[in-house]
Amino acid sequence: MTRRIGLTTGGGDCPGLNAAIRAVVLRAAARGMEVLGIEDGLLGLLAGTGAGVRLLRPDDVEPILNRGGTILGTTNRGNPLAFPMADGSVVDRGDEIVARARELDLECIVMAGGDGTQSIGLELAARGLAVIGLPKTIDNDLSHTEATFGFATAVGVAVEALDRLRTTAESHERVMILEVMGRGAGWIALEAGIAGGAHVVLLPEIPYDPDVVADAIRRRRRAPRPFALVVVAEGAHPPGEAPPRHAWPGTHGSTALGGAGMRCAELLAQRVADCEIRVTVLGHTQRGGTPVPFDRLLATRLGTEAADAAYERDHGVLMAWVPPDVRRIPLDPTIRTPRLVDPASQVVRHAEALGICLGRIPPA
Amino acid sequence: MTRRIGLTTGGGDCPGLNAAIRAVVLRAAARGMEVLGIEDGLLGLLAGTGAGVRLLRPDDVEPILNRGGTILGTTNRGNPLAFPMADGSVVDRGDEIVARARELDLECIVMAGGDGTQSIGLELAARGLAVIGLPKTIDNDLSHTEATFGFATAVGVAVEALDRLRTTAESHERVMILEVMGRGAGWIALEAGIAGGAHVVLLPEIPYDPDVVADAIRRRRRAPRPFALVVVAEGAHPPGEAPPRHAWPGTHGSTALGGAGMRCAELLAQRVADCEIRVTVLGHTQRGGTPVPFDRLLATRLGTEAADAAYERDHGVLMAWVPPDVRRIPLDPTIRTPRLVDPASQVVRHAEALGICLGRIPPA
Amino acid sequence: MTRRIGLTTGGGDCPGLNAAIRAVVLRAAARGMEVLGIEDGLLGLLAGTGAGVRLLRPDDVEPILNRGGTILGTTNRGNPLAFPMADGSVVDRGDEIVARARELDLECIVMAGGDGTQSIGLELAARGLAVIGLPKTIDNDLSHTEATFGFATAVGVAVEALDRLRTTAESHERVMILEVMGRGAGWIALEAGIAGGAHVVLLPEIPYDPDVVADAIRRRRRAPRPFALVVVAEGAHPPGEAPPRHAWPGTHGSTALGGAGMRCAELLAQRVADCEIRVTVLGHTQRGGTPVPFDRLLATRLGTEAADAAYERDHGVLMAWVPPDVRRIPLDPTIRTPRLVDPASQVVRHAEALGICLGRIPPA
Amino acid sequence: MTRRIGLTTGGGDCPGLNAAIRAVVLRAAARGMEVLGIEDGLLGLLAGTGAGVRLLRPDDVEPILNRGGTILGTTNRGNPLAFPMADGSVVDRGDEIVARARELDLECIVMAGGDGTQSIGLELAARGLAVIGLPKTIDNDLSHTEATFGFATAVGVAVEALDRLRTTAESHERVMILEVMGRGAGWIALEAGIAGGAHVVLLPEIPYDPDVVADAIRRRRRAPRPFALVVVAEGAHPPGEAPPRHAWPGTHGSTALGGAGMRCAELLAQRVADCEIRVTVLGHTQRGGTPVPFDRLLATRLGTEAADAAYERDHGVLMAWVPPDVRRIPLDPTIRTPRLVDPASQVVRHAEALGICLGRIPPA
Repeated sequence: MTRRIGLTTGGGDCPGLNAAIRAVVLRAAARGMEVLGIEDGLLGLLAGTGAGVRLLRPDDVEPILNRGGTILGTTNRGNPLAFPMADGSVVDRGDEIVARARELDLECIVMAGGDGTQSIGLELAARGLAVIGLPKTIDNDLSHTEATFGFATAVGVAVEALDRLRTTAESHERVMILEVMGRGAGWIALEAGIAGGAHVVLLPEIPYDPDVVADAIRRRRRAPRPFALVVVAEGAHPPGEAPPRHAWPGTHGSTALGGAGMRCAELLAQRVADCEIRVTVLGHTQRGGTPVPFDRLLATRLGTEAADAAYERDHGVLMAWVPPDVRRIPLDPTIRTPRLVDPASQVVRHAEALGICLGRIPPA
Repeated sequence: MTRRIGLTTGGGDCPGLNAAIRAVVLRAAARGMEVLGIEDGLLGLLAGTGAGVRLLRPDDVEPILNRGGTILGTTNRGNPLAFPMADGSVVDRGDEIVARARELDLECIVMAGGDGTQSIGLELAARGLAVIGLPKTIDNDLSHTEATFGFATAVGVAVEALDRLRTTAESHERVMILEVMGRGAGWIALEAGIAGGAHVVLLPEIPYDPDVVADAIRRRRRAPRPFALVVVAEGAHPPGEAPPRHAWPGTHGSTALGGAGMRCAELLAQRVADCEIRVTVLGHTQRGGTPVPFDRLLATRLGTEAADAAYERDHGVLMAWVPPDVRRIPLDPTIRTPRLVDPASQVVRHAEALGICLGRIPPA
Repeated sequence: MTRRIGLTTGGGDCPGLNAAIRAVVLRAAARGMEVLGIEDGLLGLLAGTGAGVRLLRPDDVEPILNRGGTILGTTNRGNPLAFPMADGSVVDRGDEIVARARELDLECIVMAGGDGTQSIGLELAARGLAVIGLPKTIDNDLSHTEATFGFATAVGVAVEALDRLRTTAESHERVMILEVMGRGAGWIALEAGIAGGAHVVLLPEIPYDPDVVADAIRRRRRAPRPFALVVVAEGAHPPGEAPPRHAWPGTHGSTALGGAGMRCAELLAQRVADCEIRVTVLGHTQRGGTPVPFDRLLATRLGTEAADAAYERDHGVLMAWVPPDVRRIPLDPTIRTPRLVDPASQVVRHAEALGICLGRIPPA
Repeated sequence: MTRRIGLTTGGGDCPGLNAAIRAVVLRAAARGMEVLGIEDGLLGLLAGTGAGVRLLRPDDVEPILNRGGTILGTTNRGNPLAFPMADGSVVDRGDEIVARARELDLECIVMAGGDGTQSIGLELAARGLAVIGLPKTIDNDLSHTEATFGFATAVGVAVEALDRLRTTAESHERVMILEVMGRGAGWIALEAGIAGGAHVVLLPEIPYDPDVVADAIRRRRRAPRPFALVVVAEGAHPPGEAPPRHAWPGTHGSTALGGAGMRCAELLAQRVADCEIRVTVLGHTQRGGTPVPFDRLLATRLGTEAADAAYERDHGVLMAWVPPDVRRIPLDPTIRTPRLVDPASQVVRHAEALGICLGRIPPA
């Protein structure tokens, strides 16, 4: 009988997921294994969720390398360990998943996802399901791996926006605020800010002093070209304030967009006179579309190695990027600890060395 | 004595302005004329505004063809005909401009701008200044010209955003709303919507019925891939409602972002159950950055023809794009009437023929 | 019985074909008609060619709007009116096509293609097949239509190459030659050259004098930044010389790449001392990949109108772009006359007015 | 007296050089040092070469972050240690450089360049000049540093070309060969090939067996979509053959373009029947234009660290990228040993694991 493995994608999607799916399928086929795609996180294994499973063949996945999103869908209808039933109750359906995977003769399931998905994998592994983790998050904040795919594409979207904002900011002598993704981790803001020539970059990891930021803006306004580019992560906030979140219609009582960006704009407007401020919120454009080459390469290599791990029955491992190689490391609860921007790291020091204001007085 | 002309850019900037500047300067030089660049709209001609004039030579402008913005700056400090003085009064400084242009031996001034800039030109022409109009607006809503530069670049930014939103909308089965520029005219929304495969496109010219839009969304949610892309122009609104505007910090009492997009989201959330809606506001990224080839070509051709008109002392004319040629037409008050999307036009009919919902029941 | 039409794509592919296919299918479905896709030009109608027909449903074509190429394939195995048989004979299989179309109950066939494809359509129409023409060529040289889709994307690829070549040309003070498509018509070279800031543009329509070009290069080499950008259409050549063509391995005795570009380089190297020249051949990258928004819009509108013509049984017509509308014009033999660059047109005059050398002394 | 350092860029240019220049200048200014830009490699220090020196101030370099090329020019007129004189002789002018640097009070010179430039730096250091090396090569083949800026941009250009070639290859069922840069090192070909979904990738490091490649092509031609993408590095060749080089007009007796790509095409045409092959040569487009975000980030960080090294008088060091940090390592003759693709490395194994043909039978 042909050996068979499962494959699923969970959590927020990101560019590169389809490249990873393709690699798992191509490599598994080369080793004589079948891949069953599980739709909508793991819900495709649960009856009555509207999702299912389907065999993925090499010809199906050949053309998806450069397409954003995931052909398998993602966890849109909830966590299988706390599944919302029609009657309003919340049910743990993990055992159902383990049983169904056995029925389908799945040797293991390769789970592409972030800390949430990997945590579900750990729980299911404890109940007897063989899992292999494939790290994925646009925020680049997973432990144990130097980079996650999707991140470079998101940085690319943000930098292109900065390049565009720069020319109009300069012509109109405006302060342009760009809000980018990153509730807990400021990697997108930091790397896009350096690469895009921002004058101020505000991160969740460094609560910002509005007076320090206002000073930086005033300094810029004395330059021959008195404009400023400000990058604000969604989770950036002054000390003592909670980061305001987008309040989407239908999910909250009130609605608002551009929480962190608009808050920063208000604080600056109170402090800097005669200054036109405009705010852009890139939103979900950061997590869609064609992945940049690095994300395709990384996703492809992680997927290839995951299929090899499956072939070797090397279960309970996470694929980690440790340049220039993919390594398999044990999948354990430390995956839940995010990898944040370290305010004392070299990249932060480099940003401040260049004169970028991070909302604090740079340490000596 | 070398013949000399002035050149200025006014109103909101848009990609292609630098290409037009370059063309005017290169062509004028080829005909033996000097070009004096006037900064910040016409303010460079007024003492005490912080702006000035500078000679533009071919070597200065050779590299700016593909750069966004305008090296001359734009009308950031107000209309010279209603200039805000330090003491709070508002003064007509038009005569000062006419006098200063004579002092500088400017045979005429080529004014690149939208309806506001061209109207100022008309008024100054009535006072004795020779002007030549070069039409420019990102909204594509100027009369007499089939297209304005900057517009194609803005459509490109919006379509790229739709391509990105599509993949994540599909993976997550979401309704994605993209708010684009266009307070009075819906050209960006309409062309980007068709080219980007939107399912709903809402224009200022066609007040939308939220129930009709909700029906379209519900239909999409029964499709095999139940996602939807909605493009909303800034000025789109239901009948009887004023379009909500962005309220920028520092300029208004309260602040809010994503007026028309968030309002549409609310109206849909009230009508469509169990539907995740997300909103992106592209903002000023639509008017910055490298112009697409068509905008460079159009700006270059308009600028070349404007320099030729100046050489021939053919004043009081507007450069108009009437494919495949640039024509010189009289600059007159009809320039103030915008060119809006005609709800009975072929392009609108094509959009509805394809099944795109414009917020109304399509006419039979 | 459901009304049914055929749809095929012929000749060299170009970005936008899939957008046109999608529009025909979506519009036909909205009017209650079925669309049968015919593969590989019309060969899908002929037994034993390895190609076939397939029903195209709206869900099949929804995602292809922004994908290059054609999902139907194109005329890879030859002209059905002069079909190469296995025994080496060449056979007219036109009657077989007409008969097969009747068998399949096709009311008409929408044929997307260039002058070759439309000519085949005319011949089949004479034999009783109802056809509707949808113009397509990357070269923009079809009569009766102001623009063809695919062209703007090709110009975009060429301009991006020029933007890249510019920075390295400037750093190294080199002459960079870019060979672009266009054997008979120079539209890509001309528009890309103007939009990309080329100093020399050589077109098939204006045989170039190498001495005039060498003078232009020498002039550039006295500039403060002594580099030059030269765009050469495939079909450009000095008077009396035939344009050298690429000789592909397997199809000719000898092989060579970059015919027109390398020939121009040789002629310059003989005339300009101490000058580093480099040549790039963009080749088929110009006809692939994601179409730019204008090409998607144009293809979508042409396809929508073609489906409406089919619904109205308005056969024997060609969809033509006459801005701002699509018009239906009679499909007749004048389609065989290409629309070339007119050396006396305004766009040519504008190019020379700016100082671009077209390989001739500009007319007074 | 203000402390002063020199800065120069040598060798082939690559995207990111201007970002590095900007970072050196901004960081030096923040530490109270002046930067003197030396033009055309080090020739700006030599009388009679047409090149010079100029003070670089922060306002000069603020806008160049995202521009390709180098504002300082590069070694266009030869190596200062073997300088070609007007009389045909070749002269070592190294001592003149050391003397001139002293006259100008340059504490040290930051030299951005590849192995050639760094070797010159080593020689000048031996003669008493303080140097700091900043590694740069589009080929990514410098020892001691995990990545060089410019490389990711080049990979991006190649992958975009593959994305475009893919759609037309598929429509026409062709074999598309893309020749990319890389005479000695195959990094661009390898990474672009994996990220772009190539079926065959040929590297200088693995001489290819044409029969093995032909087998791979024949296998592809039995697929449902019988097209193939082949990436060939400039330096790829069968065993025993020298890699053919481009022969540029004016520099060689005969001229030819697309050496390695055309040779591969010939070898395939001899072996695979009825197969249309087309060749594209990206040429210098790979080393120009806007750098991708990673290259800007890396160049900026290397430049910042180089300025800090200069401030600390930490001379004789090379800035190396050892993710996630920049490290200073001794500049020594090992810089001359290139970092090639290791045929036994994991990335090569991953490529073959996916089914990519590298022109050899994959090792077991």
